[in-house]
Amino acid sequence: MDLKSLIREIQDFPKEGISFKDITTVLNNKDAFKYVIDQLSEQLKDLNVDVIVGPEARGFLMGAPVAYKLNKAFVPVRKPGKLPAETARYEYKLEYGTDALEIHKDAIKPGDRVAILDDLLATGGTVLAAAKLIEELGGQVISLNFLIELSFLKGRETLKDYHVETLVQYDEE
Amino acid sequence: MDLKSLIREIQDFPKEGISFKDITTVLNNKDAFKYVIDQLSEQLKDLNVDVIVGPEARGFLMGAPVAYKLNKAFVPVRKPGKLPAETARYEYKLEYGTDALEIHKDAIKPGDRVAILDDLLATGGTVLAAAKLIEELGGQVISLNFLIELSFLKGRETLKDYHVETLVQYDEE
Repeated sequence: MDLKSLIREIQDFPKEGISFKDITTVLNNKDAFKYVIDQLSEQLKDLNVDVIVGPEARGFLMGAPVAYKLNKAFVPVRKPGKLPAETARYEYKLEYGTDALEIHKDAIKPGDRVAILDDLLATGGTVLAAAKLIEELGGQVISLNFLIELSFLKGRETLKDYHVETLVQYDEE
Repeated sequence: MDLKSLIREIQDFPKEGISFKDITTVLNNKDAFKYVIDQLSEQLKDLNVDVIVGPEARGFLMGAPVAYKLNKAFVPVRKPGKLPAETARYEYKLEYGTDALEIHKDAIKPGDRVAILDDLLATGGTVLAAAKLIEELGGQVISLNFLIELSFLKGRETLKDYHVETLVQYDEE
């Protein structure tokens, strides 16, 4: 399936010079949505994963259906203040300032084999933060799987210690 | 399955006096997560729905797997500024101030039969806003399906014009 033809590109969103890759046009095509979830599941099915982790919010759209399909547990990683029980927090640098992600401390058990799913691999900062949180709790990060990769942002360098798979690649901005 | 025993209650979150229903403990139990998605799908399977809508962010966790399971399109409803293409917006009152939700204008076609899924029915304000957006675009709201209902908040009165189904009910705070 030619997924790239179904991903809508929006110029100058969220700011000038960015060509935003809009996956809602994929989600809104029932055959394309099914294809994406089936492909991501296929990448993971032989990796003996216990838990699927998805970062808020679009990571939920990839991770939850794949967890359902593979009959795995799903664990959300969220922005600070959203998760109600005791959390571990990881702060990371942005171009200006810092951002942070949280995970419930009891969500990952030592030795859990974990895959992190998200819609988009850009610089890799968000998913690296999620991976660090999982490792802090004793989990093993087995695979990082994305619908889209913006190769020109070199996220694979940031994530060089991990197994990375993507379905659609954009080589230039 | 006794889902209620798997829902974690967190006292005084997000503010004093609230007993927050934490669904992450359900998501993190692969059998319970599968059961929830299968039950929600079962409620919808004979309603001839075209599109599943989920409000950000926990609605994504229910809606996306059900859309996958039933082979339907998924459409997100999000907080303002998150959706990149042209949106319709609905503002609604909160206890203090207002909030708003957006949907892509081209996400629903006139006549589409739509189900809205979310994790929790409280006062019903969020889902009513989502329903109004869908109707503004010409869609028909066929069903509103939730994992949890806080019956004592009387969301069903707010949603009295719609078909509402819930899996777990709490009769008191």
